[in-house]
Amino acid sequence: MQSEGLLIVISAPSGAGKTTLCRGLTQRFPALRESISYTTRQPRPGEVDGVDYHFISEARFRQMVAEHAFIEWAEVHGNLYGTALATIEEARCSGVDILLDIDCQGAKALKQRGVRGLFVFVLPPSMHELRRRLESRSSDASEVIERRIVRATDEIREARWYDYIVVNDRLEEAQELLAAIVTAARATTERMVGQVAKLFDI
Amino acid sequence: MQSEGLLIVISAPSGAGKTTLCRGLTQRFPALRESISYTTRQPRPGEVDGVDYHFISEARFRQMVAEHAFIEWAEVHGNLYGTALATIEEARCSGVDILLDIDCQGAKALKQRGVRGLFVFVLPPSMHELRRRLESRSSDASEVIERRIVRATDEIREARWYDYIVVNDRLEEAQELLAAIVTAARATTERMVGQVAKLFDI
Repeated sequence: MQSEGLLIVISAPSGAGKTTLCRGLTQRFPALRESISYTTRQPRPGEVDGVDYHFISEARFRQMVAEHAFIEWAEVHGNLYGTALATIEEARCSGVDILLDIDCQGAKALKQRGVRGLFVFVLPPSMHELRRRLESRSSDASEVIERRIVRATDEIREARWYDYIVVNDRLEEAQELLAAIVTAARATTERMVGQVAKLFDI
Repeated sequence: MQSEGLLIVISAPSGAGKTTLCRGLTQRFPALRESISYTTRQPRPGEVDGVDYHFISEARFRQMVAEHAFIEWAEVHGNLYGTALATIEEARCSGVDILLDIDCQGAKALKQRGVRGLFVFVLPPSMHELRRRLESRSSDASEVIERRIVRATDEIREARWYDYIVVNDRLEEAQELLAAIVTAARATTERMVGQVAKLFDI
């Protein structure tokens, strides 16, 4: 019996280091596939369509919403973001593990729809450090930073209902912890029992 | 807020490699303390009282049972084995993680008493390999081996209700997996929320 692919859902306030951690995770587990979200926001310098996001028009996005193509979608800072149901289901059914990097609103929508997954929240070591990290990103205007801080405070409250909390103080340690969480999730009895039932009279 | 120590409960049929795995785990996590069981069986060559087991008389054992000193106890192959409640509670309350290497009967008793723990079952890669491993132990008579095989078959059915299943095919991989399970268990939201609540308004 083939196991269903794991769905690893990772959320974090902006500046917690989620993108770096996710990149590390896909390097560590090459079979892990990143779900690529759809968005109406403009690509940032260096971002590639179909790799970082599927960059689409608002009209197309609204059409996909009408077609129920998204398992979750949300408006963040005036832009639309969505995760296509097909992407996830296709992969999972074929046993592929999927990494889903989405915000709390999106993760909550998945949880509420009863989607089975491993929900991981990444925290910065402190609000002070979060501010420092956001300010050191030259690309963001100070009003954007303030908005992110307010939003971060709200998002961090959502950590409560995730399965795991990873505090990203030292990157390497956080990376190891995240890898351990994924490794352990593959050995839960729920997942293993199908594989071992054929070897033993379980 | 200090977290309660983890209670890691490991069971396996004889010959699955549990003892080696447990030893590896305590080497990897030096702060992890092994719970030492009480037993009425005779020490095997090399076993040390107070290190491998507390070797006690049957009279003393029965007295401890009467005093409700054991959180679980069982008769296995004609010998009595028990885990003292005090050992576990003392350590857990002071935040120490405890490793408890007990059989399915004992583990089930803990589970049924609502003791919170990480229940891990170690499986051999196959019944064939289990037999091979048991036969290569020169110390056991062939009737003992047969008894262990019958018992193993029963025990393996108990794997169903454990939290995790570790198949010990290649020792190093099983060791890594077991370490990952323990590492991940330390980052569950239930355990982390107390620690992060003081940093954030959660």
